[in-house]
Amino acid sequence: MIQKLNVACAGLGRMGARHALHFLEKTPRAELVAAYCPAEAESEITWFNQRLAPFGVKLYNDYDEMLKHPKLQAVVVATVTTVHAEQAIKAIEADKHVLCEKPLSTSVEISQSVVDAANKKPHLKVMCGFSRRFDASYRDAWNRMDNGSIGRASVLRSQTCDKLDPSGFFVEYAQFSGGIFVDCNIHDIDLALWYFGQDSIVKSTYAVGITAVQPDLRKYKDVDNGVGVVEFWGGKIAYFYSSRIMAAGQHDMTEIIGTEGKLTVNANPLGTLVEMSEASGVRREIPPHYYGRFAEAFVTEATEFTAACLDSTKLPFKLTGAVQAVKIGCALQESLNSGKKIEFDETGRRIEKAAL
Amino acid sequence: MIQKLNVACAGLGRMGARHALHFLEKTPRAELVAAYCPAEAESEITWFNQRLAPFGVKLYNDYDEMLKHPKLQAVVVATVTTVHAEQAIKAIEADKHVLCEKPLSTSVEISQSVVDAANKKPHLKVMCGFSRRFDASYRDAWNRMDNGSIGRASVLRSQTCDKLDPSGFFVEYAQFSGGIFVDCNIHDIDLALWYFGQDSIVKSTYAVGITAVQPDLRKYKDVDNGVGVVEFWGGKIAYFYSSRIMAAGQHDMTEIIGTEGKLTVNANPLGTLVEMSEASGVRREIPPHYYGRFAEAFVTEATEFTAACLDSTKLPFKLTGAVQAVKIGCALQESLNSGKKIEFDETGRRIEKAAL
Amino acid sequence: MIQKLNVACAGLGRMGARHALHFLEKTPRAELVAAYCPAEAESEITWFNQRLAPFGVKLYNDYDEMLKHPKLQAVVVATVTTVHAEQAIKAIEADKHVLCEKPLSTSVEISQSVVDAANKKPHLKVMCGFSRRFDASYRDAWNRMDNGSIGRASVLRSQTCDKLDPSGFFVEYAQFSGGIFVDCNIHDIDLALWYFGQDSIVKSTYAVGITAVQPDLRKYKDVDNGVGVVEFWGGKIAYFYSSRIMAAGQHDMTEIIGTEGKLTVNANPLGTLVEMSEASGVRREIPPHYYGRFAEAFVTEATEFTAACLDSTKLPFKLTGAVQAVKIGCALQESLNSGKKIEFDETGRRIEKAAL
Amino acid sequence: MIQKLNVACAGLGRMGARHALHFLEKTPRAELVAAYCPAEAESEITWFNQRLAPFGVKLYNDYDEMLKHPKLQAVVVATVTTVHAEQAIKAIEADKHVLCEKPLSTSVEISQSVVDAANKKPHLKVMCGFSRRFDASYRDAWNRMDNGSIGRASVLRSQTCDKLDPSGFFVEYAQFSGGIFVDCNIHDIDLALWYFGQDSIVKSTYAVGITAVQPDLRKYKDVDNGVGVVEFWGGKIAYFYSSRIMAAGQHDMTEIIGTEGKLTVNANPLGTLVEMSEASGVRREIPPHYYGRFAEAFVTEATEFTAACLDSTKLPFKLTGAVQAVKIGCALQESLNSGKKIEFDETGRRIEKAAL
Repeated sequence: MIQKLNVACAGLGRMGARHALHFLEKTPRAELVAAYCPAEAESEITWFNQRLAPFGVKLYNDYDEMLKHPKLQAVVVATVTTVHAEQAIKAIEADKHVLCEKPLSTSVEISQSVVDAANKKPHLKVMCGFSRRFDASYRDAWNRMDNGSIGRASVLRSQTCDKLDPSGFFVEYAQFSGGIFVDCNIHDIDLALWYFGQDSIVKSTYAVGITAVQPDLRKYKDVDNGVGVVEFWGGKIAYFYSSRIMAAGQHDMTEIIGTEGKLTVNANPLGTLVEMSEASGVRREIPPHYYGRFAEAFVTEATEFTAACLDSTKLPFKLTGAVQAVKIGCALQESLNSGKKIEFDETGRRIEKAAL
Repeated sequence: MIQKLNVACAGLGRMGARHALHFLEKTPRAELVAAYCPAEAESEITWFNQRLAPFGVKLYNDYDEMLKHPKLQAVVVATVTTVHAEQAIKAIEADKHVLCEKPLSTSVEISQSVVDAANKKPHLKVMCGFSRRFDASYRDAWNRMDNGSIGRASVLRSQTCDKLDPSGFFVEYAQFSGGIFVDCNIHDIDLALWYFGQDSIVKSTYAVGITAVQPDLRKYKDVDNGVGVVEFWGGKIAYFYSSRIMAAGQHDMTEIIGTEGKLTVNANPLGTLVEMSEASGVRREIPPHYYGRFAEAFVTEATEFTAACLDSTKLPFKLTGAVQAVKIGCALQESLNSGKKIEFDETGRRIEKAAL
Repeated sequence: MIQKLNVACAGLGRMGARHALHFLEKTPRAELVAAYCPAEAESEITWFNQRLAPFGVKLYNDYDEMLKHPKLQAVVVATVTTVHAEQAIKAIEADKHVLCEKPLSTSVEISQSVVDAANKKPHLKVMCGFSRRFDASYRDAWNRMDNGSIGRASVLRSQTCDKLDPSGFFVEYAQFSGGIFVDCNIHDIDLALWYFGQDSIVKSTYAVGITAVQPDLRKYKDVDNGVGVVEFWGGKIAYFYSSRIMAAGQHDMTEIIGTEGKLTVNANPLGTLVEMSEASGVRREIPPHYYGRFAEAFVTEATEFTAACLDSTKLPFKLTGAVQAVKIGCALQESLNSGKKIEFDETGRRIEKAAL
Repeated sequence: MIQKLNVACAGLGRMGARHALHFLEKTPRAELVAAYCPAEAESEITWFNQRLAPFGVKLYNDYDEMLKHPKLQAVVVATVTTVHAEQAIKAIEADKHVLCEKPLSTSVEISQSVVDAANKKPHLKVMCGFSRRFDASYRDAWNRMDNGSIGRASVLRSQTCDKLDPSGFFVEYAQFSGGIFVDCNIHDIDLALWYFGQDSIVKSTYAVGITAVQPDLRKYKDVDNGVGVVEFWGGKIAYFYSSRIMAAGQHDMTEIIGTEGKLTVNANPLGTLVEMSEASGVRREIPPHYYGRFAEAFVTEATEFTAACLDSTKLPFKLTGAVQAVKIGCALQESLNSGKKIEFDETGRRIEKAAL
C-alpha cells in the first residue's frame, strides 16, 4: 500500500485554509492529520469543524502541542508573517519537514535564522512557498529560456498588482507586511533570481512610490504604487511594479527579454474563457485575487513538496533564495523611503557611503 | 467521519485511466475500489499495477464479476463506445449509480434503452459524461445568458476540431465512432440543447463534408471536415463545424448570439499563459488534445457525480438529453451521406417524404 | 508633369460621398471632376456644396449629362443598387472606365448584362467594388495561402455581421437589397471565389435563417440572421453567417482552413489599440460600421483602379466573378425561402428536379 | 477655389521622404512646392526625380536658397537631428511656419533657442513632430482619461522598443542621437507630459541600462536597453523602457494607471489582422518599424499642421513641451552614465548637491 506523508497546517486564515484543503483533497500522497489555530480565532474554528473535522483532522490551539502529534512528519506554516520564522524553526527542531509561506520574515536576519536552522538538519525538506515557481506558465517560460529560445536573458519586467480595495484593508495590513516591495514584489524578485540564476548578485536597488488612493499608508512608510529597479552584476536589469489600485482585478505579469527573443507570462489576464460582446464593446472579466490566478500552482506546490519529503528528492529551489529575495525587497523598501539608490559590491555586500 | 462513494472504473484506456485517477486522487468524497479491463489489455494492466494497485484498487478482467464487488456503489463506464450501453444497463440492473462516457451509443434506439433501464431505478443517478457541462467557462457563459445578458439566445455556433493526426488513427477509429457528427459534434449538439433549453425540438438537420486529408474515411461513410446546420422549432439555429485537420492543436469553441449580445467561449485557444516574441512574430501554443482544454471539467464531473450519489441530489442535467443529442448527431451524419435535408415535425418526429 | 485620371462620382449618399472624397483627397493620380445626384437629394447637394464644390468639382442632376463632361474618363457608380447596372452600362457605352459598387445587380441576368457590355469594350476597365479584395489583411492571408503555408485550402468560413440597428432601417432596406445573402454575404461569397480560385464551380447551396429581432423582414422574404452552406466541385466547402443584430458593432471575419494550417482574418475585431481596464473587467470597443474596418481598403481600391485605367494594366480580379457571386447569393436566398437545397452540375448549371 | 498651403520639405532621408509624400499625396489642403537635400545625397536625388519631380516640386541643394522660393509658406524640417534647430530658426526668421522632426535638438539650450525664435513670431505655427500626439489610439486614450474614466492618472508606463538590427546601424547612429533616452524615450516622455498635463514639473530622474547585444554603444555612452524612472511633483510617476533588441519587431506601448481604471495603448502589437494557425501554434507578425505603427498619425500630423497654418488656429500642443521632453531625456541619459539620481525643485530647477 501507498505510504503517505502526515502533514499539519498551522494557520487557518485565508491562505492557511486553502493549504489545508490542498493537502486534504488534492495531494494523493499526503494525509492531513492536524491543524493549528489560536483559541480566539472563532471563524477559523467553525470552518475547521465543518470542513476538516469530518475527515479526522485534529485541531490544536497550541502550536507546540501540535508538533507533538505522534504521526506528524511535515508542517505547513501559513500563519501571520510575524511568526513564520519562529514556527518554522520550532518545526525544524522537532524534526519536521517545513513548507513556510512567503516571506520567511520581513527581516533579512530573521529570514537567515531559518536557513541556519535548516542547515543543521540536512535530511529535512524546508521550503519557502514561492507559488509562482510551481505555476505551469512560469515553468513553461523558464524551460523555453533554458532551451535557449530567447538567447541570453537580460531584462526582466515583473509586476504584482492587486485589485483596488477601498475598505482600507491594505492600510492595516501595511503595519506588518514589510511594505509593498517585500509583500508584493517579493514574488517578482524571486522570479528575477530564478530566471537570471540563483547565484545572481544584486548590484543596486532604487525605488519610488506614491499613495494614489490611500494616503494613510504613509504612516507605515508604505505606498499603494511602487516602481523598483534592480541591477545585477553581469549586466542584467530587473524592474518591478506593484500596485494596490487595479480596478479590473489582480494582474500579475512578467516579461523576460533576451538577446534573441522575449517571453511574456500573463500579459492579458483572463478569468474564464468567456468573452462578452455587448453594446459597450467586447469584454472579459479577470480574477479578483491572486488565488484565481495561482490556485493550481498551490496544488502543485503541495504535491511536489510531499513527493520530495517522501522520496528524499531535491526541492525545486533552494531556501537561501528566500533570504536573497527579502534582502532585495527590504533594500527597495528602504530606497523608497530614503530616496537613495543602494549599492552592493560584487560579493553582494552593501556599500555604505560614509558621507551620506 | 466522512462517508465516501465506492466507485469502480470500467475501461483503462486513454479516457478510462484519467477517470480512474480523477476518482482516486481528486475526488475527496470518492474511493476508487475496483477497475475493469479485458485480460488481453496488457499495457492497461501494467499501468494499473503501477498507478492503481498501490492504493488498494482491485482489478477485474470480467465486468460482471466487478459488479459483484461487495462495497461497490457506482460505476464509471469508459470502455469502447460499442459496449457503453450494455455495461451501463448491467450496472443499473445491479443497482449501481452510473457515469457513462459519451455517447451512450451511436444508435438512437440503444441509447434510449439505457434511459429505459434508468427509468426503472429512479433512486439511481445515471449520467452521460458531457464534460463541457462541467467546464467553468461554459458554465460562466450559461449563467450570463440565464441572467439575461444577451437577451434571447437565437443562434449558436460551435465547433469541435481535433489536431491533425497523420497516423491514420482517425480512419480506424471511424469504424466505430458513429461518424464525425456523432463523435465530435455530439458535444456541440449537447451545448445547443443546454443553451437553447433541454426541451428544444429539432426542426431540420443538414450536413455536408469533405475528406481533405484522409480519403479512406469514405470507406466508413465519414469525413474529416463536416459542417452541419440544425434548425429548432421556435426560431433558433445551431450550426456546427468539426474537423480532424487542425495544424495547431485542438480548438473547440462556441458562440451564443442573442438579441442583445453575444457570448464566446474559447475563441482564442491557449495552452499556458506564455507568449513568445521571436523573429517570426508573436506566438502561443495551444493544447494538442481535448484533455488539455477540459481536464478540470472532468474532475468537476467526478466531484459532482459523487456528491449527487451520496447526497441524493439532482444531477445537473437529464439523461434523456443524451438521446436527443445522438438523434441529432445521427440525422446530421445521415444527411451528410444522403445529401438530403432531414425534417422533423413540431413534436420532433421525423417527417418521411414518400416521394423521396 | 503627372497625368491624372478624370473621374466622376454618381451618387453622393453614404458610400458615394466616401468614394468622392477618396478620389478627391487620397488618390494622387486622380482628379474628381464631376458628381451626380438627383435634384431632390437636398442633403447630398448641401454636402456637395461644402465639400466638393470648393475644389472645382461640377455637380450634375442628370446622369446622362454628366457622362458628357468633356474631360471625363472614368465613373464611380455608387447610387442605389437598383440603378447600378443601368448606369454602369451607360458609362461603358459612353466609353468610360467604371468602378461599380457591389452588387452589379440583385439579378443574375442583369449582372450578366453589365459583363456583356464590358466585353464589347475590352479597352475599358470595368470593376465591381469588392472592397475586401483591396484590404491589406485579406491580401496578406491570400498571399500566405498562395505561398503554400496552409497546404490546400479546403474549408472557408466567413461572416458579415452588422451592428444591431433598432431603427427599423434594415426592414426598409430589405425591399431593395436582394436579401441578406446577396447584400451581406456577397462579400464572403466573393472571398470564397477568391481563395478557392475564380474558376471554382458551385455544387450546391443551402441556407436557413431567422428573424430574431425584426419579424417585419419576412414581408420582404428576408431574415436578420442567416446561415448558408455552399459546396464547390472538387471537395471544397464554404459556410457563411450574416447577421443584423451584433450588439458590439460590425464583425466581419473569415477563416481559411487548409490541409496544413489555418488563416484567420479579424477573429478579434478592434477599433483603436486602446484597452480599458475598469471595475467590470477589460474592454475594447469595435467599429460600429464596415467603413471603420475597411476605410483604407476603399482608398486602395480607388488608387489601384486609377492606376489600371491610366497605365492600361490588369485589374486585380475579373468582372465575371461578380456575376458568380450574385448567382450564389441568389441561390442561397432562394434556398432560405424554399427550404430546399439547390444543386448544380459540374459546369455550374442548375439541376432542376422535376418531381420537386 | 480652395486655398492651399505651399510647403517645402528639408531632408529626403527615410523620414523626410515620407513627410514629402504625405504633403504631396495625402494632405488635400497642402501643395508640396519644394524640397531640399544636399548635393551629395545621390540616392535621395534619384528618389526625388522619380517621385516628386513629376508633380512639379522643385529641388534645392542649398537650404537658404530653398527658403527664398517665392510661394513658400511652411517648411518641414526632416534633416539629421544636428541641424534641426538651425534650420528651424532660419525658417522662422524667413517667416515660414515650421514642422520640425523630433527632437528639436539633443541639447536643452539649443532646443530652447528654437522656442525663443518662435516666440518672436507669434503669427507663425511652429511645431515639434511628436507623431504619437496625432495617433488615433493615443487620442482615444487621452479623451477617455480626460472624460474621467480612470479617475486621476497616477502612474504611466511607456516603452519604445526597436526591432533588433544586427547590422551595427544603431552604434553609428548613437554618435548623434543623444542616446536612447533622448532618441527613443523622448516620445514616452512627451506622452507623460501630455497625459499628466503640460505643466507637470519633474521632481527626479533615474536611469540604468545595459548593452546586451552591442557593447560598442558604450563608446558613445549609450546602451541598447534602458530603464528610466521619472517622478513628477504632485505624486505622479512615469517609468520608461527602451530597447534596440526586440526580435519580433517594433513594440511601442503605454499604459496609464489611474485611481479608478487603467488605459492601455498597443499592449498587443499587430501588423495585419491575420493570425496563422500552424504546427508550431498560433502566430501573428508585427510591424518591423515605427512607421508600420504610426503611418496614419504622420498623415494626420501633416493635415492638422496645414489646417492650423491656413486657418490661424491653435496647434494641438505647445512648442515649449519639446524643451521639457529634451530636458527630461537628457537628465535620464546623464543618470544612466553617472549612476546618480538627479533631483529638481518644485519649479523644475535642478538641485545641485554640493557634497557630490
